[in-house]
Amino acid sequence: MRARDLNINIGVLPSGPNDAITDVEGVRVGHSTIIRGDGPLVVGEGPVRTGVTVVCPREGLARDEPVFAGCHRFNGNGEMTGLEWIREAGALTTPIGITNTHSVGVVRDALISAELGVDGEYWSLPVVAETYDGTLNDINGMHVGAEHVEEALQNAAGGPVAEGSVGGGTGMICHEFKGGIGTASRRVPEEQGGWTVGALVQSNYGRRATLRVDGLPVGRVLTTDRVPSPFDGEKTDQPPGSGSIIVVLATDAPLLPIQCERLAIRAGVGLSRMGGGLDDGSGDIFLAFATGNSGLPRAVLDADIPQTVPVRMLPNERMTPLFHAAAEAT
Amino acid sequence: MRARDLNINIGVLPSGPNDAITDVEGVRVGHSTIIRGDGPLVVGEGPVRTGVTVVCPREGLARDEPVFAGCHRFNGNGEMTGLEWIREAGALTTPIGITNTHSVGVVRDALISAELGVDGEYWSLPVVAETYDGTLNDINGMHVGAEHVEEALQNAAGGPVAEGSVGGGTGMICHEFKGGIGTASRRVPEEQGGWTVGALVQSNYGRRATLRVDGLPVGRVLTTDRVPSPFDGEKTDQPPGSGSIIVVLATDAPLLPIQCERLAIRAGVGLSRMGGGLDDGSGDIFLAFATGNSGLPRAVLDADIPQTVPVRMLPNERMTPLFHAAAEAT
Amino acid sequence: MRARDLNINIGVLPSGPNDAITDVEGVRVGHSTIIRGDGPLVVGEGPVRTGVTVVCPREGLARDEPVFAGCHRFNGNGEMTGLEWIREAGALTTPIGITNTHSVGVVRDALISAELGVDGEYWSLPVVAETYDGTLNDINGMHVGAEHVEEALQNAAGGPVAEGSVGGGTGMICHEFKGGIGTASRRVPEEQGGWTVGALVQSNYGRRATLRVDGLPVGRVLTTDRVPSPFDGEKTDQPPGSGSIIVVLATDAPLLPIQCERLAIRAGVGLSRMGGGLDDGSGDIFLAFATGNSGLPRAVLDADIPQTVPVRMLPNERMTPLFHAAAEAT
Amino acid sequence: MRARDLNINIGVLPSGPNDAITDVEGVRVGHSTIIRGDGPLVVGEGPVRTGVTVVCPREGLARDEPVFAGCHRFNGNGEMTGLEWIREAGALTTPIGITNTHSVGVVRDALISAELGVDGEYWSLPVVAETYDGTLNDINGMHVGAEHVEEALQNAAGGPVAEGSVGGGTGMICHEFKGGIGTASRRVPEEQGGWTVGALVQSNYGRRATLRVDGLPVGRVLTTDRVPSPFDGEKTDQPPGSGSIIVVLATDAPLLPIQCERLAIRAGVGLSRMGGGLDDGSGDIFLAFATGNSGLPRAVLDADIPQTVPVRMLPNERMTPLFHAAAEAT
Repeated sequence: MRARDLNINIGVLPSGPNDAITDVEGVRVGHSTIIRGDGPLVVGEGPVRTGVTVVCPREGLARDEPVFAGCHRFNGNGEMTGLEWIREAGALTTPIGITNTHSVGVVRDALISAELGVDGEYWSLPVVAETYDGTLNDINGMHVGAEHVEEALQNAAGGPVAEGSVGGGTGMICHEFKGGIGTASRRVPEEQGGWTVGALVQSNYGRRATLRVDGLPVGRVLTTDRVPSPFDGEKTDQPPGSGSIIVVLATDAPLLPIQCERLAIRAGVGLSRMGGGLDDGSGDIFLAFATGNSGLPRAVLDADIPQTVPVRMLPNERMTPLFHAAAEAT
Repeated sequence: MRARDLNINIGVLPSGPNDAITDVEGVRVGHSTIIRGDGPLVVGEGPVRTGVTVVCPREGLARDEPVFAGCHRFNGNGEMTGLEWIREAGALTTPIGITNTHSVGVVRDALISAELGVDGEYWSLPVVAETYDGTLNDINGMHVGAEHVEEALQNAAGGPVAEGSVGGGTGMICHEFKGGIGTASRRVPEEQGGWTVGALVQSNYGRRATLRVDGLPVGRVLTTDRVPSPFDGEKTDQPPGSGSIIVVLATDAPLLPIQCERLAIRAGVGLSRMGGGLDDGSGDIFLAFATGNSGLPRAVLDADIPQTVPVRMLPNERMTPLFHAAAEAT
Repeated sequence: MRARDLNINIGVLPSGPNDAITDVEGVRVGHSTIIRGDGPLVVGEGPVRTGVTVVCPREGLARDEPVFAGCHRFNGNGEMTGLEWIREAGALTTPIGITNTHSVGVVRDALISAELGVDGEYWSLPVVAETYDGTLNDINGMHVGAEHVEEALQNAAGGPVAEGSVGGGTGMICHEFKGGIGTASRRVPEEQGGWTVGALVQSNYGRRATLRVDGLPVGRVLTTDRVPSPFDGEKTDQPPGSGSIIVVLATDAPLLPIQCERLAIRAGVGLSRMGGGLDDGSGDIFLAFATGNSGLPRAVLDADIPQTVPVRMLPNERMTPLFHAAAEAT
Repeated sequence: MRARDLNINIGVLPSGPNDAITDVEGVRVGHSTIIRGDGPLVVGEGPVRTGVTVVCPREGLARDEPVFAGCHRFNGNGEMTGLEWIREAGALTTPIGITNTHSVGVVRDALISAELGVDGEYWSLPVVAETYDGTLNDINGMHVGAEHVEEALQNAAGGPVAEGSVGGGTGMICHEFKGGIGTASRRVPEEQGGWTVGALVQSNYGRRATLRVDGLPVGRVLTTDRVPSPFDGEKTDQPPGSGSIIVVLATDAPLLPIQCERLAIRAGVGLSRMGGGLDDGSGDIFLAFATGNSGLPRAVLDADIPQTVPVRMLPNERMTPLFHAAAEAT
């Protein structure tokens, strides 16, 4: 059941058909979920509650036709690889992987290998982000493998997106409730361009007491029962607020790289309205990409690369509705 | 009448004695308010509704004993001078001036002259910020002079702070209500350090429809009557959302420069809870300084400067309560 | 006499016809030079050795047709106003003023007034930078006025650019020689686009001993005689290395904002080859703009503003020759 | 044979005893070198010319006693993980790994596992950087494993540091010569603090023609013979300039995080003097850490963490000699 089904409507803008990041045409999402075992924690055995989620920014390989992108570190107690390249080139050239904190590396290298399978003549600097699932998952057992990345890539599809305890979100906790993957989209009015902004989050942050729903501080009146752990009889404490949230924003508006960064910043407005953004221990890192330009050249200098490339941009003065959409979708 | 007098309590933390930035010991605020004339706008004559507000970070001159500082550009459609120096040195070495958009220069140079009057042997890179008051004020008449800066400096004092249509805030509009200067403070619990965080804003941003009070989207049910203009019969349109907000945060916690920047970012959480942060045309620029270290040397290399200086820092893991205080005070 | 006249050829690329920033079509430079008095320093009287230099990025007003721009703080012990706006919008919408440290404000406000004279209905966030001329000039006498800004704007023209002790550079010292305004340009080969990169600097940095010419550390063998001061018998010490350098880069290549920032960073390579970039007390701030796109809309939201705007970009992979040109021109 | 053995003395400052990053007390360097096979490239078989280098910032685990750190992206066509955390916390809490582009992930996760072996109750966000060795190495064969990381960690020691084709530098090319690992140190004069700055680079950038030695453009007169490939008869083209350089700086001066970032920027001055910094395709990423403060608390909030921590800082005005040392050591 989703928020809209409960008549909880965040913000004022309408959603796209799936209320998902996939409402931005060409964006595909795939999960690989690893759930195995119960009982006391035995490192290397389990219980396992983890996985990988991938977001592919467009049909085909992003390396063959990059999309403009920008990022924002709201609170850097976390990891998202590939950002130096995003900041320099202003472009996303790989799928985005999201997993647990200690599996970022294996997912990163596996994303490279997966692309090499298609066409070996390339380097790659993949974007892989994480949040920490060590309360519910045997995180130090390193249960994520290259095969899970491949599965997530094969599952990547448009249309409705599975939410909650799936993919990278499998073992996540949010505001001391069960957390995980979430997604939504918002459409700006036709006369303001009719653009879609979609968000996908891996949500693992926050305290119960600070929870807000579209700004209403409901956490102040909620009880503080915690998420039960699969680790029978054993308590692995996650200090409240020690988690993180990764936000991926997509839009079909033709934003320039600098404008993608501006959009990414607005994920923080949405997060603030949910009661986040105030914990030192949280890794709140946001990435935004824009599919509204096509034909951007591969990031390789060869004879075929043109001297200049035509692109479109949104006038900055038309960004406001997208900022609202980004905040509401987040 | 202030929010607390109306039983509107923003957040959960207690305020300091004045509920003002001056609750951070040593911080002084001074205003110079210029109100003159009515009737139709005649550039150079009026009506005049503008002024200058200064925030002095500590007793004595900041140049003689700087305070650590950091800044954040949430949306850069505005000006705050002196930030390259803040970013490089991590220190605030001047008073902070706040005025209208077209008077930043005169206030900046006057702050230099005022210091030269004390001790001529120095250079200075003052911090001066602005928001636009051209709807209510003859902004192009350039009515702010060096004498107003001197008056604001002479008025600078601790204790209660005048709010609303005073100083730099005289001609401001916020969420389509009359805006201006606002201030508040929050105290973190004694067992978390007992630090105070104070905020002072010059508030000129936002649309009526997006107004929130501590997160509650009350703007959705408010009427849209506008602020009446002093310009009789003449309407100088300020596009809704074209304004800005300057936030100055002060704390007595011994933050390092990098931690001041982290604190400044949390002004954005407070702003998000008030319905701001989503307009392209807004200059939302934040500055935070920390008085918890004393004895920082003057920014001049001479024989007396020590090889190293002892300072204190807050462990990053103790920042969370201050983040809450900064968001609530904003 | 210029370096090329002495057969000192910096780098390997050819210069444009004027070896000046004005080789980028449409760029205009104007100076206002203030030289008055001799003898001992009397604050408010003189001697005066200062001025203003303006760089207009294109024919007509930049506010009516902005140019993409980006900036870089190599060492922030200095001031360049307007950068928050440049960073946010990615566009330069005003002329660039360069003057002494204590006259940034008057130049800033005068640039606004000058534009208001043309069309009053506008706000403005001008770019004004500075270096310190207090060793050779009565800097605290505040001798720069709005009339000098107007003169510099009226003088702004293409073609050859006066260098040395002119405009903002009048009272500057560089590597303990007489410093000031400098300019140069470089052209990349036709098959790499044939673009021009021009640089204009106000140069006031550095020690004699660290001077390099295109990388050769000639300063190690030079004597250390200082620039004679106009202040008879009186020595106002400028600590070696206490100065700054402002670099403005222009190109006719169609760079995006993010690419302008990348170009600006390469001014630091040129500076490094000249022996700069290593003094704490230096304000080394760089701005780059690109005229290769036209038709960018005014930064005002009105009914006429299009939904999207077509622009061109250089593929990142074609930036390398421009980086070389920027370093060599600087 | 090292540069000093050839009477090539870069800069003017003296080196420490090892002319290596290990001249900063407590810093340890370890390599694991993988050389296997010859003849034509068979992906997955070889030839293999790659490895891992680790830099441990102090005796013991950095996570137990972090060191202040800062970073700089000079050109972001590369990867260094862990930087969001460095930027937020201002501290380095892990060893630094350096390897080839496609093995960043395996090295990252292996660094986590290695620490878990010591004390399982921790999360980790390791710093791992890369340059591309696909011209001389079967990079897509993914020959680096966790065992190589462990070997490098076990090898980590103070004293002289092996340079050239070792560790992560095994397969590198620089200015079209054989590249790899390099290290050096410089000491500032006793009366300026007597601090040591050490550098370690993995150097894989640059064209022959642009090579400079301490600024002298010797590349202009060198032939352009290329590095012979181990791939018999088969030419895997590395476009000149497509490489990267990773620079790690260490100092025993008590720098604050913001000052570490300032130091890191000066690696770019050194690089500029060597003819680098001008290629779009280069990943030039710099990290600086400072061991001059001890007793910084673990990045975990528990009851034991103090309310404040005493630290020392260098006055900014004393940074200049360290900037020179950083440039010369790089």
